[in-house]
Amino acid sequence: MSDKEFFKVATLESVLKMIGTFPSCGEEIQPLGLGVGRILAQDVISDVDLPEFNRATMDGYALQARSTFGASEAMPALVHAVGSVGMGEIPTVAVGSGEAVRIATGGMVPQGADAVVMVEHTQDLDAETVEVYKSAAPLQHVMEVGEDFRRGQKVLSKGQRIRPQEMGVLAALGRTHVPVHREPVVAIVSSGDEIVPIEQKPGLSQLRDVNAYSLTGLVRMSGGRPVYLGIAKDNLEELKRLCEEGLAQADMVLISGGSSVGSRDFTLDVVRALPDSEILVHGVSVSPGKPTILARSGGRPIWGLPGQVTSAMVVFHVMVRPALERIGGLLHGSQRESHVIPATLSRNLASAQGRDDFVRITLTRRQGGYYADPVLGKSGLIHTMVKADGLIRIPRDSEGLEEGASVEVMLI
Amino acid sequence: MSDKEFFKVATLESVLKMIGTFPSCGEEIQPLGLGVGRILAQDVISDVDLPEFNRATMDGYALQARSTFGASEAMPALVHAVGSVGMGEIPTVAVGSGEAVRIATGGMVPQGADAVVMVEHTQDLDAETVEVYKSAAPLQHVMEVGEDFRRGQKVLSKGQRIRPQEMGVLAALGRTHVPVHREPVVAIVSSGDEIVPIEQKPGLSQLRDVNAYSLTGLVRMSGGRPVYLGIAKDNLEELKRLCEEGLAQADMVLISGGSSVGSRDFTLDVVRALPDSEILVHGVSVSPGKPTILARSGGRPIWGLPGQVTSAMVVFHVMVRPALERIGGLLHGSQRESHVIPATLSRNLASAQGRDDFVRITLTRRQGGYYADPVLGKSGLIHTMVKADGLIRIPRDSEGLEEGASVEVMLI
Repeated sequence: MSDKEFFKVATLESVLKMIGTFPSCGEEIQPLGLGVGRILAQDVISDVDLPEFNRATMDGYALQARSTFGASEAMPALVHAVGSVGMGEIPTVAVGSGEAVRIATGGMVPQGADAVVMVEHTQDLDAETVEVYKSAAPLQHVMEVGEDFRRGQKVLSKGQRIRPQEMGVLAALGRTHVPVHREPVVAIVSSGDEIVPIEQKPGLSQLRDVNAYSLTGLVRMSGGRPVYLGIAKDNLEELKRLCEEGLAQADMVLISGGSSVGSRDFTLDVVRALPDSEILVHGVSVSPGKPTILARSGGRPIWGLPGQVTSAMVVFHVMVRPALERIGGLLHGSQRESHVIPATLSRNLASAQGRDDFVRITLTRRQGGYYADPVLGKSGLIHTMVKADGLIRIPRDSEGLEEGASVEVMLI
Repeated sequence: MSDKEFFKVATLESVLKMIGTFPSCGEEIQPLGLGVGRILAQDVISDVDLPEFNRATMDGYALQARSTFGASEAMPALVHAVGSVGMGEIPTVAVGSGEAVRIATGGMVPQGADAVVMVEHTQDLDAETVEVYKSAAPLQHVMEVGEDFRRGQKVLSKGQRIRPQEMGVLAALGRTHVPVHREPVVAIVSSGDEIVPIEQKPGLSQLRDVNAYSLTGLVRMSGGRPVYLGIAKDNLEELKRLCEEGLAQADMVLISGGSSVGSRDFTLDVVRALPDSEILVHGVSVSPGKPTILARSGGRPIWGLPGQVTSAMVVFHVMVRPALERIGGLLHGSQRESHVIPATLSRNLASAQGRDDFVRITLTRRQGGYYADPVLGKSGLIHTMVKADGLIRIPRDSEGLEEGASVEVMLI
């Protein structure tokens, strides 16, 4: 490794900072019904007041609150029933003092009325007279015009993920189609002389291409569209060809394998041979995942991930996923996109200073909180990932964490 | 409401218990690459030992650990280099006492060797002699045959969600296709004279069909396949026709709207008119969501959800989603599927005894934990759902929660 390249061994923080320099995908128009989970590409401004009319939020009687002031079970207020409003109907009567109109949840509150009393707090004495047993406050059980959103108000922000409630808002505004960021296309290339396609029975000393599938799953779960390009033998030309194919159709390229010294060099050589390319990171001070490579070609990120499936997965969770979200247009800063679960560590964990260690844990519920129990077993065994619920980080400046320490669990 | 029906007002616990009585969807075979997020329909038993050969987990030298015992920087062990093993190669030499073979990560450990020393702890003196600076323990940096999974071992369980790591395991076993539960089809019917399609500009007193979209999003996020059947006016025949259409093609039917007294009766009447039907629940002691209906026709659940979008969404999160997951084959009991985020309540919350109250909250990070801040605003306003990160529950037997109370947040 030359001095110049040694310089490129990076901390996790610096890698995450670099990620911010990649541009996000362009936008596309999506039918609203398919929009859930996608990232808004533009702010949404309301062009109406929501609701557009004063709406009852309970079944009951619309009236003037002051007609009921002082009313109680012992001393009901008497009001005069002057009509009713059906769902979707425009009231034909106005409500004066001492008058009431029967109304259903969602109905349009008639002119003159400023409150709704629940039907449970009334009794019809006859067809025209109603007893009210409870004093109503003005605006009680009424949703006023514009109380949800006002015309001209910013309702949703660019970079926000569309959850079911945001779909609801867009529906309320009549947006049948929404501008969202394209889902980033991620090319997946496996490399290594020992790797065979999974449908093949591996010969002695060969391995099935496990990374192709775990990375496919990770890309999908992170809002990307995986494209698997196949296996390159440890051969410069073959790997270069698959990388070029990836760059031609994808927003990001993942090369896994090449964790052995020889193939690591292939990945570096391939990147150097690509047009407009730059090696940004060669080695990251994390464990597992130290041999990770991050490069750029034509503005697009290329990751060299460890061949060991568990290391590749950890690197994905810790670095690649944030990059993919960034490219997918997600603007962080919202709590809701960074939820980690606070937990208490169940036993001492040693760690080497100078690198961020990521440890697999299972979560156990105890007395109103979670305990994080480290998963035992060699780091390279995939069953440790299957057992695990999440990862915790032992920071670079720490020699370990003690039993009882507060940790934050990233779910995997 | 007759006495018999009053009897059907249920607690949340009893509704959740009823959910367990619905049968799960049948299975289908899915290509592995599309399997992420799906629910396994059968146990997976390994038909091989994984790994199938002793594998090096570091670049270095394979040797007999005892050849290095006592080695140190000051007193290196000298070993005789007798060859090398390339990736995917079957070693042609065996390793005897005092001998070593160069090996790369993932390579097959030759016969005779029981450990790998990292290349960083060695120095080649000449082509045939290597100094080792550190004593190796037996099995160090070696993944043994069957150490990950043994032939005949249950590797994954029926009812488990396939995450990226489970895809990796299935790939390692050469399972190009996997048996998964069908995604439940959920028919969505909106009802109410006041509801218009979202592409239509609502007249005064009309509302766009917001529920169609928020429920579509919720179904998708919960692993179901939504089918929107349209809007039934408050008309028995029309609603019945859409319900029948739903039952003909879906595993579950959601009718939203009908939260006004009149339309609630329509929903009940429609269910009674359906073949082989039973009303299981008419009213649940939760807020919001009291007027929820759960019925069964031909073994399939029919939900009557409140028309108010925010109430319908809360009922979905609290009751419909667990039902959908059950039908989708997910077996609970695993911690990882029930993650809620522990938080501290930031202010007092009053509540009525006798019902479970669900309160919208935002999460704020402070000193290593989360604070749950209740979202202000009338319950029916959709912007309260847009602002919210999650829901907390104030239990039925409580009159409220105090500032500083430990709460569990269900993300929404």
